[in-house]
Amino acid sequence: MKPIDYKSVSLKEGFWKRVRALNATVSLKNIYRRFEETGRFDAIRCERREKPPHIFYDSDVAKWLEAAAYLQADYPDQDVRAIIDETVRTIVKNQLPCGYFNSFYQVYQPDKIFMERTEHELYCAGHLIEAAVALDKCGVNSDLLPAMCRYADYIFERFYVCRDTGFTTCGHPEIELALVRLYEHTGEKNYLTLAKYFLDERGKRAEEIYPNMDRAYDQSHMPVREQRDAVGHSVRALYLYSAMADVGRLTGDEELLTACRALYDDIVCTKLYITGGVGSGWYGERFTIPYDLPNAEAYAETCAGIAFVFFCERMAMSGNRAEYHAALERTLYNNVLAGESLDGKAFFYVNPLEADAKYAAYARTMPGMPIKPLLERVEVFDCSCCPPNLVRLFGQIGGVVYGEEDGVLYVDQYISSEVSACGMTLSLMTDLPYSGSVSAALTGNGRIAFRIPAWQTSIACWVNGAEVTPEQREDYLYFAVDGQTNISIRFGMSVRFVYANARIRADVGRKAVEYGPFVLCAESADNGVELSALEIPSLDNATIERTEYGVRVRVPAYREMPAQALYTYRSPVLKECELILIPYYCWANRGEQDMQIWFL
Amino acid sequence: MKPIDYKSVSLKEGFWKRVRALNATVSLKNIYRRFEETGRFDAIRCERREKPPHIFYDSDVAKWLEAAAYLQADYPDQDVRAIIDETVRTIVKNQLPCGYFNSFYQVYQPDKIFMERTEHELYCAGHLIEAAVALDKCGVNSDLLPAMCRYADYIFERFYVCRDTGFTTCGHPEIELALVRLYEHTGEKNYLTLAKYFLDERGKRAEEIYPNMDRAYDQSHMPVREQRDAVGHSVRALYLYSAMADVGRLTGDEELLTACRALYDDIVCTKLYITGGVGSGWYGERFTIPYDLPNAEAYAETCAGIAFVFFCERMAMSGNRAEYHAALERTLYNNVLAGESLDGKAFFYVNPLEADAKYAAYARTMPGMPIKPLLERVEVFDCSCCPPNLVRLFGQIGGVVYGEEDGVLYVDQYISSEVSACGMTLSLMTDLPYSGSVSAALTGNGRIAFRIPAWQTSIACWVNGAEVTPEQREDYLYFAVDGQTNISIRFGMSVRFVYANARIRADVGRKAVEYGPFVLCAESADNGVELSALEIPSLDNATIERTEYGVRVRVPAYREMPAQALYTYRSPVLKECELILIPYYCWANRGEQDMQIWFL
Repeated sequence: MKPIDYKSVSLKEGFWKRVRALNATVSLKNIYRRFEETGRFDAIRCERREKPPHIFYDSDVAKWLEAAAYLQADYPDQDVRAIIDETVRTIVKNQLPCGYFNSFYQVYQPDKIFMERTEHELYCAGHLIEAAVALDKCGVNSDLLPAMCRYADYIFERFYVCRDTGFTTCGHPEIELALVRLYEHTGEKNYLTLAKYFLDERGKRAEEIYPNMDRAYDQSHMPVREQRDAVGHSVRALYLYSAMADVGRLTGDEELLTACRALYDDIVCTKLYITGGVGSGWYGERFTIPYDLPNAEAYAETCAGIAFVFFCERMAMSGNRAEYHAALERTLYNNVLAGESLDGKAFFYVNPLEADAKYAAYARTMPGMPIKPLLERVEVFDCSCCPPNLVRLFGQIGGVVYGEEDGVLYVDQYISSEVSACGMTLSLMTDLPYSGSVSAALTGNGRIAFRIPAWQTSIACWVNGAEVTPEQREDYLYFAVDGQTNISIRFGMSVRFVYANARIRADVGRKAVEYGPFVLCAESADNGVELSALEIPSLDNATIERTEYGVRVRVPAYREMPAQALYTYRSPVLKECELILIPYYCWANRGEQDMQIWFL
Repeated sequence: MKPIDYKSVSLKEGFWKRVRALNATVSLKNIYRRFEETGRFDAIRCERREKPPHIFYDSDVAKWLEAAAYLQADYPDQDVRAIIDETVRTIVKNQLPCGYFNSFYQVYQPDKIFMERTEHELYCAGHLIEAAVALDKCGVNSDLLPAMCRYADYIFERFYVCRDTGFTTCGHPEIELALVRLYEHTGEKNYLTLAKYFLDERGKRAEEIYPNMDRAYDQSHMPVREQRDAVGHSVRALYLYSAMADVGRLTGDEELLTACRALYDDIVCTKLYITGGVGSGWYGERFTIPYDLPNAEAYAETCAGIAFVFFCERMAMSGNRAEYHAALERTLYNNVLAGESLDGKAFFYVNPLEADAKYAAYARTMPGMPIKPLLERVEVFDCSCCPPNLVRLFGQIGGVVYGEEDGVLYVDQYISSEVSACGMTLSLMTDLPYSGSVSAALTGNGRIAFRIPAWQTSIACWVNGAEVTPEQREDYLYFAVDGQTNISIRFGMSVRFVYANARIRADVGRKAVEYGPFVLCAESADNGVELSALEIPSLDNATIERTEYGVRVRVPAYREMPAQALYTYRSPVLKECELILIPYYCWANRGEQDMQIWFL
């Protein structure tokens, strides 16, 4: 089973090419501007300032470099190129002779290098390594790679050979998956060895923990192979699980993969929002307990959604690919896309599933309230991990489309694109997410398989114009390709009710509406306030209108009319109304207002 | 319109006499023990200790004294009497020559006396004054009254005459209503003048506010006469509104009464839980915004419920008495009664309307989480205002039963008791809250009116054995009494669905069940877990069983069965089951478990 990575896939006109273009032309530059203004790029100059940089500024810059690398090929830009080259030069110049680079420690606390477990040091290193691999692989800049190999060698020397550091595993996983990427790109086995070492050592001893947090917060409560419940900080968890899946696959380590499957099942069966968001608890940005999925109070950090996409992508390489790709699709089209505004300029860190504008306004007036709903996206956060993370995911989005297994070319996600693999050349055109039409123009000889989306209501297939009933196995449709072959598939796509597990207190007795991969929502701009009092009796008379961003659905509904009194013995009066639904990811682009996903 | 106070009313066998007896024989002593152990009684000895007492320990002791005063007449106890006398002696002995008494300030910060607005100084004075009045009125101890009159005189001198204090109004209202009680007991007009002065000055200037709080927190955001929305800390608010109602009634100040009516309406129409709890927001223990009434996260402090009872009681003296007494009844039988365990030993500060034991257990493992659900009552809190507040309310509960207006004797609450008023002697026997049977044996001549409870489903009346249709006006039934008269009333009492206003997000689409004055709830001990998935289609086949604590109701119901998956396109499967409901106030007496009030 092999991945077919972003380098081999070129996107064609369609929904995702537009998203990627927006990120290349708007988001990337806007994030750079805000990072420059907030001193993130200044930090890597490693000059001592009165106010030290934040401990993880290097990772912000690194993620920006990585994102820029993916986008340069298709969206070349002299200014961006100049920033990349200058940034790489600065990093290389300031790297210590031993290979070490960290703009905070080497300038402000050189005596504390590799001594403080909870300060994101190896996390920053991991993101720099990922950036170096991407820059080299995309042919944008090849100077960072050798520098970061030297850094990785130094980490190997200190953590694995000498073992003279103040901690064994980093408080924020990331280095592990970065080392795997570096190994896959360079072939240097020490990097895989070190990744596996970091995984194996985690949870084996009581290392330094974060203030006010337990050992589970950074998944150090037990050896990773024994872990079965997804717990702790959700981004940390999913970066760790991604590395476990990587090392498991590359070393054939079934114990690691067994743990990964159990962790995935725990998330998907008990801790996943309908939007694909994960990490419901704001306290510690954590996974909490099974079925604890509040809507207005959802945390569901954008970075956690991105990390879950990474994890699903890796898990799909070890079997059951349809299931993992269905989960990946849910998160990508909903939680992750919602992280960015439609104009590409602003971002959500927290992604609630319900919004109450009046309450948010009230909370703003309470100075000491620890968490306040944010109902509009902002350009930069103090902790600004999510914006560049989104751009780097969208930059490499081609990597989630295809896979190769036993010589079969798998179409896992429906994104218009071209690829050559398994002895075939494929031009994939799809109307998704607007409708379920897929057409594949193939040359060559081989076998191709198309994932059957969970949301389809019907399937019809044609090969070279003739309707066929293809082989169907484990949620894929299999076709033989023999010379020039045109395959058309029409997946029925319509609005459907979705019901939550009755154990989810927040949703029981309610239903959501999905259209294809989109979870839909209602906003006040279309539907007035008090959206939680809306009841959808049926979707039979829904009308679906295509828009630039997906769909707008109109459906006859009822509104429970508020009585005069607060409590009454009379059952509520229902009034007919029309409910307008839009894709969840489009919410909060028209000012602060109410939003609702779950209806009566 | 005149109150008929607790002194004139003697309770007879029944529900409330049992509650009061439990408080006299168990709660009062248990609270004393815990207060003694935690240094509260030690504090008033005014000896300098290494660890200063809490700023409001005096108020805890004062509320205990007041409660003890009410209960001594009916439940004389040598030990309690000795504590009362010793405590009073200590306070009188340690009172400063000027009349001032505060165990914290006079010992630890004498230079800050009357300088710090936010430190509960006049709040403590108010409770001491209330205790002094109660002790004198009940004939238990008459030494505290002159001492507290001297203290009140000193406050009058400093705050009203000299105006040389560091603040004008106390950060925690209480002194205002205490001064009214002192005025009513002694007839000294200065006390009423001072109460009115404190009310009038509040919100007129920017005084010191609490850290992280706004001026609305202690209702100082605008002059009280202009206030229309119930805002800020709910106990502060309701003590203030109670004093406004008092002064408004005693001085015929319509502006104050207009403000009170608007504030009451705002609470009852937008901010009251079905349990009668108020102050939904844990942050600042505050009123939040209209219709923001979350269930599991409800604050609904016991003291706020008690303060709402005080406010309703006072408002009823200025017209619309049935409405105010209906609200008082709701709060008393649900939010307030729930504040104490059935054995009288333990107390809730926060009174949620839904409990999730699994989540509470999880929250306990998160050290820094600012609020954690507490699902079992405890003997003492750090801030232990609620326990003695409950006992002093139950001690004087006879005061809520009757009223006198235009020579008519009003029966406002159904509590078996005897009273002589309006030229009549009444012996009231009632089966409430078990059933709606009321019988009144009267002698003398006059008119009597019985409140028609909001929950009744039918009314039948008999005078001297003959069925009659009495005059019915503004939710009261009027009867003439001419010599020996026996009046019997049967209010139909059954289980009824109650629906919340559709603007309450937490409850819309759900219904609660009431039986007479009781809001019912389901607990896991009777019904298993996942109570939010229970649906009650109808109450037609409910069976009602009388228990010591009220009722146990069995009703056929459905349970939404959890699917295997977290989200599914199939509508949920319903399984028939029997639901067992008990009065809400009885919850959490059988270990930590789930609890639910609102059902599908």
